[in-house]
Amino acid sequence: MSVPILKNFVADKWVAGDGGLRTIPSAVTGAPVAQTSSDGVSFKAMLDHARHVGGPALRELTFHDRAYIIKDLAKALMDKKEELYELNFDTGATRKDGWIDIEGGAGTLFSMSSQGRRHLPDDKVLIDGAPEQISREGTFMGQHIYTPRQGVAVHINAFNFPVWGMLEKLAPTLLAGVPAIVKPATATAYLAEAAFRVMIETGRLPDGAVQLIVGATGDLFDHLTGQDIVSFTGSAQTASMLKNHPRVLSESVRFVAEQDSLNATVLGPDATPDNPEFELFIKEVVREMTVKAGQKCTAIRRAFVPANLADAAEEALKARLSKITVGDPANEAVRMGPLVSNAQREDVREKIAQLSEEADIVFGSPDSVDVIGADITSGAFISPVLLRCNNPGAAAKVHAVEAFGPVSTLMPYNDLGDAITLCNRGEGSLVMSLFTHDPKIARDFVLGAGAYHGRVAIINRDSAKESTGHGSPLPVLVHGGPGRAGGGEELGGVRGVKHYMQRTAIQGSPAIITGVTGQWMKGGDIDASAPHPFRLKFGELEIGKTIETAERTVTLEDIEHFAEFTGDNFYAHMDEQAAKANPFFPGRVAHGYLLLSFAAGLFVDPAPGPVLANYGLDELRFLTPVPAGDTIKVRLTAKSKKKRNDEYGEVRWDVLVTNQEGEAVASYDLLTMNAI
Amino acid sequence: MSVPILKNFVADKWVAGDGGLRTIPSAVTGAPVAQTSSDGVSFKAMLDHARHVGGPALRELTFHDRAYIIKDLAKALMDKKEELYELNFDTGATRKDGWIDIEGGAGTLFSMSSQGRRHLPDDKVLIDGAPEQISREGTFMGQHIYTPRQGVAVHINAFNFPVWGMLEKLAPTLLAGVPAIVKPATATAYLAEAAFRVMIETGRLPDGAVQLIVGATGDLFDHLTGQDIVSFTGSAQTASMLKNHPRVLSESVRFVAEQDSLNATVLGPDATPDNPEFELFIKEVVREMTVKAGQKCTAIRRAFVPANLADAAEEALKARLSKITVGDPANEAVRMGPLVSNAQREDVREKIAQLSEEADIVFGSPDSVDVIGADITSGAFISPVLLRCNNPGAAAKVHAVEAFGPVSTLMPYNDLGDAITLCNRGEGSLVMSLFTHDPKIARDFVLGAGAYHGRVAIINRDSAKESTGHGSPLPVLVHGGPGRAGGGEELGGVRGVKHYMQRTAIQGSPAIITGVTGQWMKGGDIDASAPHPFRLKFGELEIGKTIETAERTVTLEDIEHFAEFTGDNFYAHMDEQAAKANPFFPGRVAHGYLLLSFAAGLFVDPAPGPVLANYGLDELRFLTPVPAGDTIKVRLTAKSKKKRNDEYGEVRWDVLVTNQEGEAVASYDLLTMNAI
Repeated sequence: MSVPILKNFVADKWVAGDGGLRTIPSAVTGAPVAQTSSDGVSFKAMLDHARHVGGPALRELTFHDRAYIIKDLAKALMDKKEELYELNFDTGATRKDGWIDIEGGAGTLFSMSSQGRRHLPDDKVLIDGAPEQISREGTFMGQHIYTPRQGVAVHINAFNFPVWGMLEKLAPTLLAGVPAIVKPATATAYLAEAAFRVMIETGRLPDGAVQLIVGATGDLFDHLTGQDIVSFTGSAQTASMLKNHPRVLSESVRFVAEQDSLNATVLGPDATPDNPEFELFIKEVVREMTVKAGQKCTAIRRAFVPANLADAAEEALKARLSKITVGDPANEAVRMGPLVSNAQREDVREKIAQLSEEADIVFGSPDSVDVIGADITSGAFISPVLLRCNNPGAAAKVHAVEAFGPVSTLMPYNDLGDAITLCNRGEGSLVMSLFTHDPKIARDFVLGAGAYHGRVAIINRDSAKESTGHGSPLPVLVHGGPGRAGGGEELGGVRGVKHYMQRTAIQGSPAIITGVTGQWMKGGDIDASAPHPFRLKFGELEIGKTIETAERTVTLEDIEHFAEFTGDNFYAHMDEQAAKANPFFPGRVAHGYLLLSFAAGLFVDPAPGPVLANYGLDELRFLTPVPAGDTIKVRLTAKSKKKRNDEYGEVRWDVLVTNQEGEAVASYDLLTMNAI
Repeated sequence: MSVPILKNFVADKWVAGDGGLRTIPSAVTGAPVAQTSSDGVSFKAMLDHARHVGGPALRELTFHDRAYIIKDLAKALMDKKEELYELNFDTGATRKDGWIDIEGGAGTLFSMSSQGRRHLPDDKVLIDGAPEQISREGTFMGQHIYTPRQGVAVHINAFNFPVWGMLEKLAPTLLAGVPAIVKPATATAYLAEAAFRVMIETGRLPDGAVQLIVGATGDLFDHLTGQDIVSFTGSAQTASMLKNHPRVLSESVRFVAEQDSLNATVLGPDATPDNPEFELFIKEVVREMTVKAGQKCTAIRRAFVPANLADAAEEALKARLSKITVGDPANEAVRMGPLVSNAQREDVREKIAQLSEEADIVFGSPDSVDVIGADITSGAFISPVLLRCNNPGAAAKVHAVEAFGPVSTLMPYNDLGDAITLCNRGEGSLVMSLFTHDPKIARDFVLGAGAYHGRVAIINRDSAKESTGHGSPLPVLVHGGPGRAGGGEELGGVRGVKHYMQRTAIQGSPAIITGVTGQWMKGGDIDASAPHPFRLKFGELEIGKTIETAERTVTLEDIEHFAEFTGDNFYAHMDEQAAKANPFFPGRVAHGYLLLSFAAGLFVDPAPGPVLANYGLDELRFLTPVPAGDTIKVRLTAKSKKKRNDEYGEVRWDVLVTNQEGEAVASYDLLTMNAI
C-alpha cells in the first residue's frame, strides 16, 4: 500500500510539497502513516492571500454570521467523526483520548459559536465597557470598541491534540473576523489535515479564511506585520525562538504562547485518609497521569499531600496505577496507548533520569512495561512512572523538569503556606487543582497561589460528580498561564476572541459614537416622530427612534394606594417623620417600583403589535426621589437590536424618567422581544 | 553653586551612586542642572525588597485602601506643585507644557483613585465577568478573577513627561497591589526625582512599594521572573532590545511597550474651506506641532487633507505657525521652548533631512529660528517645520520616519479609502484624529483604520468646545497602540490595572467560589435564620444572609387593577385571545412590574432600620410568565457589599422570585444603601 502524501491548503487550493517528503510513522506499529512536505510553497503569497482575500471577506460578515459558519464546521466534523477516529489510533490515542480531541474539538466550536451569538452583537463592531464621560456637558465622550485586526493569525499547534488544538484556536480567530494559517505538528499532521479537509469541504468558509501548512514554515515569519497574531502551543524553547524572531520584535507582532508547565495538585490540609477528598485526589492524579499517556500540557506533574498522608497517598496511587493496562490503543482492554513517537519516549526517559536525581521511582519503570496487543519493539510504549521526593523545598528539578508522558512526582508539605510556596516554585502553570472542602482554605490558597496559574480547579465531595476535572480546558474558561506556561491566554469565551481584535478608544460627540458603534448613546440624535416605536417591526425600527410621553403627577393617594396594594409599606413611603430622618429623602417619596410602573403606563402602546414581551431590565438607577405632587414623564429610545431567530429579536431601549424640573428620576435599559 | 546630586531610592533609603556621575544640562542654557548615577546599587536587592517587603504589604491592602493612598499622593503633588514648576523650565517646557506634566500627572492619580473606588471592590480579589455555568446541576461552576501579580513592575520612562509619565504607570500598578521600580529618563530625571520625593515624604506608601533608579539599570533585567511586568515608554529600538533580553524571553516576563508612532490626522472628505471642521483641523495640527516643542508620543506627524483643500490647508497652517514664538520657556511671551537637549535637536534635524527626500519644507527651517529671552547657541531651540508631500502613496519615509520635535508633513488624499490606506501606512499608532461631521464617514473610517490605532479622536463643531484634543491621553481611555506604537496598552481605567494582575479561572462548588471571591454565588450556602436581613447594619450583614418570604397568589383582579392604576393596558395582560396568540404567553399574564412590586411587598421589612434606600436594580430577567392564580414567593440573599463612606455602604442582593412549581419567575440583583 502506498503511503498517502498530505497536502498544503494554499490560496484555496490543495498543493503537495515539491520534494523533501518526510515520513510520519505510526506511534503503535512504527509503520509509515503519511508523508508530508511544504517545499515550494510561497509563504509570502499565503500571507498576502489571507490579507487581501480572507480578511476582507471575513470582515464583511457580522459576528453572528461567523458564529453560524463555526457551528456548521462543528456539525460537519461530528458527521465525519468516525473517519477521524480511524486515524486517531495511529497517534497512540485510545478512543477515549480521541474523544477529547475530536468530539471535544467539535464541542469547542459549538460552544464558541454559541458564546458568539449570545455575547457578541450581530454587527462588525464590539463595544467594550460603558461609555466614558469625559466632558461636563457630554458633547465629547469616549467609548472603547474592538474591531478585527487586519492581519493574519498564524497558528502553530502541538502534536498531542491535533484536532482540538487546531479548533480551539480557529474558533476565536474566525469569530473575530481574522483569517488563519494553520501549522500542525508533524507527528500527527495527518489527523489535523483530515479534520481541516472536512471543514473546507463544507464550502462554508470564505476564500482565504483558512490555509494549511503541513511541512516547515520556511520564511513565513519574515513577512509578519504588526496586525498579525502568532498563537503558539508547544515547548518553551520553540516559543522563545519564535518570539525572538527579528520581525516579531520589530513589528510588535502579537504573540500568544501556551507552553507545557509543571502543573501541580494539592490535597488540602483538611484531608484525612478516610474523607472523600482523599479518594478524589488519588483518582484524579492517576487519571491525569494516564489519559493521552500523560502527553497533556495540563497533566499533573507535581502532587502535593500533607506530610502525614504521604505514605497513604503513595500506597493508594500505586494500587490504582497497577490497574492501568498499556498497549494497542485500538484494543478495548487497553487503558493507555503508547507515546507519540520513539523520540518522545527517549525524551521522557531522559527527563525521568533527571527527576531521579532528586526523587525515587516508587511505581513503574521507564524501561519496561507489559504491552497488550502490540509489539513493544515497534511502538513507543512506556509504563506510568510515579516518583516520590521527600524534601521538595530543597529540590529544584522536580519543579522545573517536565517529563511529557505518564509521569508525576508525589511530595509532602507541612502546612498551607508551605504548599503555596511549593506550588509557586513551578514558576507559572496552566492549571493547578486543590482538593478541599473548606472555602477558607480555598480563598487563602487562591490569594497565595492564584497569580501563578491560569486556572485553579477546586474539587470536593460537593462538586466531584459534576467536576470537569483538573486537566480539561473548557471553551468558556481561559486556558493559558503566566511564566513557564508562556504568559498567553486562549478561549474563555469572548475573552479569547479579543486576542484577535484591536481595542481602540473612540472619542467624539454622542451622534458620532452612535454612528460608529451602531448603538444609540445618550445625547445622540433622536427621531420622536410618529408612529409610536412599538408599532415598528424589528427590521423597521431604527436606532434613535423615540417616544416622548405625556406627563403624570404622582399623588399621595397613589403612594398610599400602591403601598396597600403591594404590601410594600417601607417607612420612606409611609412615615413623613422617619423619611425625613433618612439621608436620601426630603420626606415621604414614591416607591421606585411605582415610578417604574407609571413609566410603563406612560410609554406602553397597548394594542397587539410587533412588541411581544418585556423580558427584562438592566442598570436601573433611581436618581432623584419623587415626593407626592411631582410630575413625571418618560423618554424611551431604541438603543440597540439583536436578532434572536427568524421570528423575533431583542430590542434594548434607553429609558429616562424625568420630573417637572427636568431632573433625571430614573434611568434604565428596557428589554423587549420584537417580531421580525 | 554646586550642582545637586540626584539619589536613588533603594529599599526605603535615599542612596547616591558611588561614582560615575553624569551631568544633566539645562535644555535652555546648557548649564548643569543635576548630576546622577546609580553605580554601586544592587539591583537584585531592589527586586528582592520589592518582592519580599513591598508586594506582601500592598497585597494586604484592599483596592480601596490603595486607591486612598493614591489620592493622598496626588494631593501632596498638588500641594508642592510650584517646586516642580521651578524645575520644569530647565527641561525646555513652558508653564503650559508643565501643566500637562505636573497637574496632568496628579490629575491622573486622582482619576485612577476614583476609578478604583468606583469600579473595584473593597477587597483583594477582582471578579471578572459573570459566573460560568459548566455543569447541569450547578454543583461545579467557573468564575474568572484577577489577583495581583506577585512580582515587581519595572517602569522605564521617557524624558518628555517626567512626572505624568511616572504617575500614569504608578497609579495602575499600585492600585493592582504590585510594587514598582521606577527608572526615569536621564535628561529630565531631576524633575522625576523631585516628584518621587514628594510622594515618599507623604509617608503613605508601604515600605518597598516604590523604588527609584536615577542612573543605569545595570543587571536589573537579569533577575526578572514570570511574575514581573516591564512597562516601557520610549523608542522602538530600546523596546526591541529589552524585549529581546534572554530573561524576558525565557521567563515570559510581561512586557507593555508604548513607542512613539507616526500619528496621523485626517480632515474628512465632507470638509470645505469655510466649514468649522477645517478651522478646527488647522488649529489642532499647529497645537500638536508646538506643545512641548512636538516632543509628544501622540503628536501629529502626518496631516492628511482632501486634495482640493491641500493648498488652502497649507496657507492656513503657515499663517498660524508664523505666530508661534520660540525662546526661554519661562518667558510669558514664548509659546514654544527648546528641545530637551542638543543631541535631540541633532536627531530631529537628521530626521527632517530624511523626510526632505520625499517632501518639501514649506514652513520654518531646521537650522535657524528667532529666539526670545535666551541664547540660541546655548539652548536646543528649533523652529516648527512643516513639510508637504504631494504623492504620499508613492512615499515611504513620511510614513516611517519620526522627527520627535515640532515637525509635521501635510499630504493630500483622493477619497476616504485612500485616506484610510495612507493612515494605515503608519503601521500602527497611538492615536489618530478625524475631523468630520458625518457619522457615516466616522463609522467607515473606524472600520477601515480602527485596528491600526489605540485611540481615534473624532472632532467636529458639536464636540470641539469640550474636546480634549488629538494628543491628550486620558486616564479613563486606553493609551497605547499596535505595531509601531509597541503593541501595549496603559490606563483605560480599570483596564490598565489588570495589566499588573493575573487573570485566573476558578472552578469549584458555589460555596467554594463564594469563599474565594467574597461574593455570594447562586447555589452557595445561605443563612435564612432570624433576624430579617434588613435589620442588620452594613457591618453586621454577612454575605449569604437570606430572607425566604411568605407566598402571594396573583389574581385576575390584581392584574386588572394594576393595569387600571398604572395605565399599562398592554394586551398580554388584558386580552386573553391576543395574549394566547403571542409566542411567549399561555394567555393573559401578570405585568412584570406587578411581580416586582409584589415581590418587594413580600420581602420589605417596613420599619426604619439600616436599609436606607433601594437605589436600583440590575440584570432583571422575567423567566416564566405568571397567569392569574399562580402563587409567587421570594428568596433574597446578601450577595456583595461595598462601603461608600463612613455613614453607609452599598449592598447587592440576589433576588429570585419563584412560582408554586418552584420555577424561576424573575431573577435580579437589588441594590440598597445600608447604614454602617
